[in-house]
Amino acid sequence: MENGVRKDYLLDRWVIIAAERAKRPSDFKAKPSPRDMGKVCPFCPGNEEMTPPATLLYIEREGNLLEDRDLEMPRRSDWIVRCFPNRYPAVKPRAKEVIAAENKLLYRTRAYGFHEVVVESPIHNEQPSNMRLKQLKYSLMAQIERVSTFYRYPSVRYVQMFRNYRREAGASLSHPHSQIIATEHIPRILREEVESSNKYMEREGRCIFCDIIELEKEGPRLIYESGYFVALAPWASIQPFEFWILPKKHSASLLEITSEELEDFSKILKTCLRSLSEALGDPPYNYVFHIAPKYPRGVDEFYHWHLEVYPKLAVWAGFEIGTGMYINVVPPEATAESLKAEIEKYS
Amino acid sequence: MENGVRKDYLLDRWVIIAAERAKRPSDFKAKPSPRDMGKVCPFCPGNEEMTPPATLLYIEREGNLLEDRDLEMPRRSDWIVRCFPNRYPAVKPRAKEVIAAENKLLYRTRAYGFHEVVVESPIHNEQPSNMRLKQLKYSLMAQIERVSTFYRYPSVRYVQMFRNYRREAGASLSHPHSQIIATEHIPRILREEVESSNKYMEREGRCIFCDIIELEKEGPRLIYESGYFVALAPWASIQPFEFWILPKKHSASLLEITSEELEDFSKILKTCLRSLSEALGDPPYNYVFHIAPKYPRGVDEFYHWHLEVYPKLAVWAGFEIGTGMYINVVPPEATAESLKAEIEKYS
Repeated sequence: MENGVRKDYLLDRWVIIAAERAKRPSDFKAKPSPRDMGKVCPFCPGNEEMTPPATLLYIEREGNLLEDRDLEMPRRSDWIVRCFPNRYPAVKPRAKEVIAAENKLLYRTRAYGFHEVVVESPIHNEQPSNMRLKQLKYSLMAQIERVSTFYRYPSVRYVQMFRNYRREAGASLSHPHSQIIATEHIPRILREEVESSNKYMEREGRCIFCDIIELEKEGPRLIYESGYFVALAPWASIQPFEFWILPKKHSASLLEITSEELEDFSKILKTCLRSLSEALGDPPYNYVFHIAPKYPRGVDEFYHWHLEVYPKLAVWAGFEIGTGMYINVVPPEATAESLKAEIEKYS
Repeated sequence: MENGVRKDYLLDRWVIIAAERAKRPSDFKAKPSPRDMGKVCPFCPGNEEMTPPATLLYIEREGNLLEDRDLEMPRRSDWIVRCFPNRYPAVKPRAKEVIAAENKLLYRTRAYGFHEVVVESPIHNEQPSNMRLKQLKYSLMAQIERVSTFYRYPSVRYVQMFRNYRREAGASLSHPHSQIIATEHIPRILREEVESSNKYMEREGRCIFCDIIELEKEGPRLIYESGYFVALAPWASIQPFEFWILPKKHSASLLEITSEELEDFSKILKTCLRSLSEALGDPPYNYVFHIAPKYPRGVDEFYHWHLEVYPKLAVWAGFEIGTGMYINVVPPEATAESLKAEIEKYS
């Protein structure tokens, strides 16, 4: 009995699981993207003049990683990971401009912050689902390094790391890249997750995410377990084939991850994305890291960082927009079964 | 100075207005949809066998409206508006099935309710932006009648009326139609709007929507004003070209609308949708009615019903999914200017 209206573990987010509306898995199969033939890719090595100067470069020398923080040649071409400001930023680190609310009904603040692009590989079509593990790890390392830098700014309260894959999921360029937006807001979803995990801690004396992992590890929604991580299809998945990856050891923020853990994370991320790609013909997706926001008292230690992956397989339409509720035609138990089966084929 | 991070009048919903990212209006122009040539349309008159039996039919006889409630011929073909259950319903009026929560982390309820389709015209390509006014009024009347019927069920707490236009906005068929979903949940967005308007009433002694109308009526976000309604681009629009239509007279629920008001509403709705269509080449959109939910104590009288129109012109990607915040590259002031200009061309 998989139907019903389910509530997210933490959020006031409800989803109607409507398996009768379900389609065959083949109905979700993605169409191949049109190749962007003939166009010059601004993210490919050699085209650095087309993007702003780098803010961080990783270089490889005889198999060793060099981090170029001097940036004397911010447009050099021999990088393996390259970070730079977004040319059309949503937020900006400008001076202490103050935007007053116009009146009590027209409330606003300045759009302060940082918006960067991380080019994850010099190879134009090396996506995480088929990336060399070392490269995937370097790309994540560079992102974590940039997030750490942004968190040091006193005004920055939260940094969102995210990846849009394929045009249907909002990527305007196909070269592998992620984005980072640092803001002085703690966004609604993060605030709600933090409040919810704090309440649970008060009531139960344990981390809610640790309890979720404990509960789901043996159950029908587990997809994969590695040394340090679990991948699962969450109870109240709002999209077909949605999955999350969580560290088994309690950790509020990704920023404290060890090198060994990051290597393991790269592996489980690649494994899961490859199984998604195999199951559905390389579909578009968005993935988002949720890490502990920074409060004036410091980072919230009861939070538990994780990654959420949302394949773009359904249109959020009038019902979702009007109500804030969701309809999902693929129960997470079916998602887990399907992704697990793909992973087993390769192991 | 149009940028900044704006908060919705009522909701904890924030949007970064990033006009520098803006494109020319022509960048939003929709591509024409592929015609569904050769396929039989299940919503066209004569094909009633392809859909479930009607639950309400409007018939026209010598220019007068007949409402067929006996439904002795639920698949007759001479209707002008036809309502019937969705063949793949998200919710169902089944018996008192109880779905228990599996445990405190896995909370769920049954998916009880009604899910109907309203075919708004017998003419395959008569969309609201070019619909005969009388037909548009009848189609809205039929929807209101169905909503009233659902609200009479003791368990029904909220009814969402919505319209998905074009495939990109979630419509699987192009024949003009709307949908109605009645649930025993009060969805998050409605609950938040009701709580917010109640708090405002307590504090200010007035309806927040009445104050919004008062404030916006003279300002840069007003699009159009008719005898009974205003159309405006809301302060914290989350989509380019988003607009709302609100009744000037305080009214909690659409269900009490008079015939004269409904005629006026049909006019302003058609006017605004036509201007949107002219400005952007008939783009996809979702529109949603927000009407007062039904509490055990009755309908909330401090609520103020309205229509929200969301053109589908941007992809909600990693940032929006991860944070619950939005980025909108078209300030509502620009939306109002552009739609106003289109309306003036025709008047």
